[in-house]
Amino acid sequence: MGSHSQSNRRRFLMSGAALSSFVMGAVRSVRGQTPAQQAALKDGLAYGQPSIFDQTIRKAPGPANGITDTALMTPLQDLDGIITPSGLHFLMDHVKGIPDIDPQKHRLMIHGMVDRPLVFTMDELKRFPSVSKVYFLECNANNRPIKGPNGDSVQLVHGRTSCSEWTGVLLPVLLKECGVQKGASWIIAEGDESNKYTMSIPLAKAMDDTLVAYAQNGEPVRPQQGYPVRLVVPGWEAIRAVKWLTRIQVVDRPALAWHEAGNNADTTPTGKGLWFRFELGPNSVITRPSGGQRLPGQGPYEITGLAWTGGGAVRRVDVSVDGGRTYKEAELQQPVHRYAHTRFRFPWRWNGEETVIQSRCTDERGEVQPTILEAAKILGVQPEYFYEADHFNGVQPWKINRDGSIRNALLG
Amino acid sequence: MGSHSQSNRRRFLMSGAALSSFVMGAVRSVRGQTPAQQAALKDGLAYGQPSIFDQTIRKAPGPANGITDTALMTPLQDLDGIITPSGLHFLMDHVKGIPDIDPQKHRLMIHGMVDRPLVFTMDELKRFPSVSKVYFLECNANNRPIKGPNGDSVQLVHGRTSCSEWTGVLLPVLLKECGVQKGASWIIAEGDESNKYTMSIPLAKAMDDTLVAYAQNGEPVRPQQGYPVRLVVPGWEAIRAVKWLTRIQVVDRPALAWHEAGNNADTTPTGKGLWFRFELGPNSVITRPSGGQRLPGQGPYEITGLAWTGGGAVRRVDVSVDGGRTYKEAELQQPVHRYAHTRFRFPWRWNGEETVIQSRCTDERGEVQPTILEAAKILGVQPEYFYEADHFNGVQPWKINRDGSIRNALLG
Repeated sequence: MGSHSQSNRRRFLMSGAALSSFVMGAVRSVRGQTPAQQAALKDGLAYGQPSIFDQTIRKAPGPANGITDTALMTPLQDLDGIITPSGLHFLMDHVKGIPDIDPQKHRLMIHGMVDRPLVFTMDELKRFPSVSKVYFLECNANNRPIKGPNGDSVQLVHGRTSCSEWTGVLLPVLLKECGVQKGASWIIAEGDESNKYTMSIPLAKAMDDTLVAYAQNGEPVRPQQGYPVRLVVPGWEAIRAVKWLTRIQVVDRPALAWHEAGNNADTTPTGKGLWFRFELGPNSVITRPSGGQRLPGQGPYEITGLAWTGGGAVRRVDVSVDGGRTYKEAELQQPVHRYAHTRFRFPWRWNGEETVIQSRCTDERGEVQPTILEAAKILGVQPEYFYEADHFNGVQPWKINRDGSIRNALLG
Repeated sequence: MGSHSQSNRRRFLMSGAALSSFVMGAVRSVRGQTPAQQAALKDGLAYGQPSIFDQTIRKAPGPANGITDTALMTPLQDLDGIITPSGLHFLMDHVKGIPDIDPQKHRLMIHGMVDRPLVFTMDELKRFPSVSKVYFLECNANNRPIKGPNGDSVQLVHGRTSCSEWTGVLLPVLLKECGVQKGASWIIAEGDESNKYTMSIPLAKAMDDTLVAYAQNGEPVRPQQGYPVRLVVPGWEAIRAVKWLTRIQVVDRPALAWHEAGNNADTTPTGKGLWFRFELGPNSVITRPSGGQRLPGQGPYEITGLAWTGGGAVRRVDVSVDGGRTYKEAELQQPVHRYAHTRFRFPWRWNGEETVIQSRCTDERGEVQPTILEAAKILGVQPEYFYEADHFNGVQPWKINRDGSIRNALLG
């Protein structure tokens, strides 16, 4: 697969064995149906939809509370298990428009510091050995402490994380096909959109578990998630996971491009910069019961939520129902996948009194999710620093009032 | 949870602790948006959709080839990984109509041979300990050998099987809450639809791993799959998995109701009946490359497909690229879930010659998927018997012609 003697040619070439189109999925159309039957098949019968009673939708934070970004956030409070339905996967910067690319015309080019620059069609990518992995994607700006009505919703505080079964080709397989040259240390990945979004990724990660994904939750990746092909960088902030992937340049230094310049460093008030910190820390949040919901009365409930970490697998989640004074270990949904949302469950009986519930994640490296005060101490900052900071992974406390109403207790 | 002293009351009662409504998911509406923004959020931004270029849809077999049932079948040839997107989950008998039930009004009643008949609201069900499991559902009539154009499509021959992450309450938890009486041996499950679909399930299975599922692939179960709640009976034919579940009666004999009378027995030409055989055998099929597709030329390809079994976990899948003369073990996608689709992958280099490719599943009990001739010998029938038989799980051979075209080779 791929070409092996094209180094003298000037232009980037199609990989040799797969020049012609591989007619995958070209299953013949259904015959013998009436026009009415065929028309019916184009709607909800060809592709089913949620109930009209199901209010489980993505929501954007409004400008009323000072948040001006353009996120559409996953309704974590309404979800179960670990899979995020593709239609509810969080979105950033959607106002710039979503390209809907014809996969027959799409190409992925790999060039730069390689022996054999190659261009792949989608059909060619599907001839390589494939892998499927359950991975989360989380925005670097997720979990920021916020005040106001949005602050009481797990969706609008923590909904910039989603989890899917991704399928594709391991990037190292493609890079080895091209032959990475000595001295190369980074790749620059570019998306096929109007503003040519680019991101830099260290070669070590690109040659490890980075995935060139063409399927999400079984079906082709959705346009909003990068159709027909997206980079997935396990455990790292989702801005690295370039959508509509069309070009990978192998280089010897990061690009520091316009889109990533503001994201490559976390600055602190003390002047200490945290450069190239792409990996996400251990994190968790109780999704039910959570802010904005109401318990109808005392009695038994299941406390459930999600934990995840850029450090690999979640090892344990502890739940406190007394504001952090004591913790008990929650049950983890099996199997636990590395770099994936991990569902935790904790049986609880509410006695009708005011209390605070919260969860704490420990990952396979032994790293423990901090409280906001612990996180501030680590960086030498005030807790208010995290209002605008990336990579916040502090414990999220939810206060349950005597009337059963639930509010965000992080900020007093 | 549940009531404990209501045995004297005449009517089935709400479970005690949860009489009032649990306002789960009642997250406040988003504020501060313009009407235009709000309108935009109701379309593809509130809930994303596949690409307009994505032709991955469910299809019905037409009447031209003599198949008159009303299935809408999963496009297995277009899918990757093990999750079937909920919008592509196979459907049977959809012409009878799909109820879209208001979950606030829906009730699940458990009665019959129990100490405490109980009625549960959806909010009450969600207070019980929950579990999430990846399970396949397969129609008893799947995989029938068929001739004609439909026979060349893995979708139209094998597409009555799908796999989801289901979340809900284990039925044994609810049955124990009600207190099953001595002498009970079956349950009868009923769906809330116009024709009151009912199915009988042995109590042993109901008290084992049967799931009362309210979520599928993270979100609420779709109406076409039983919204707001469906029974899932792991490893058993999907007709037992009653949709729109509204009533469970604990009894001491199966109901033999109208809907199941024709399904409770597999009859054979020799007069031997196979009664109450609900469990599905070890099965597999190569989904790519498969019938109706075309290889563009010789060279490397990945052969991939799905295996599953009612016997629990798939232990191994073997692939033959020489019409069954020799087999080699395929790689199984990890982790392998019990009673779930299991993705297998097998690297292959096509030399351009005519050949036949096929797969064979062995499950954790050591049971091996038979060829159609072996399956006929087991039952003492001719292979043509399987044209109309249930539970066929024979090996599916695909013939690759010199021009790269692929045809069903099961029937010569």
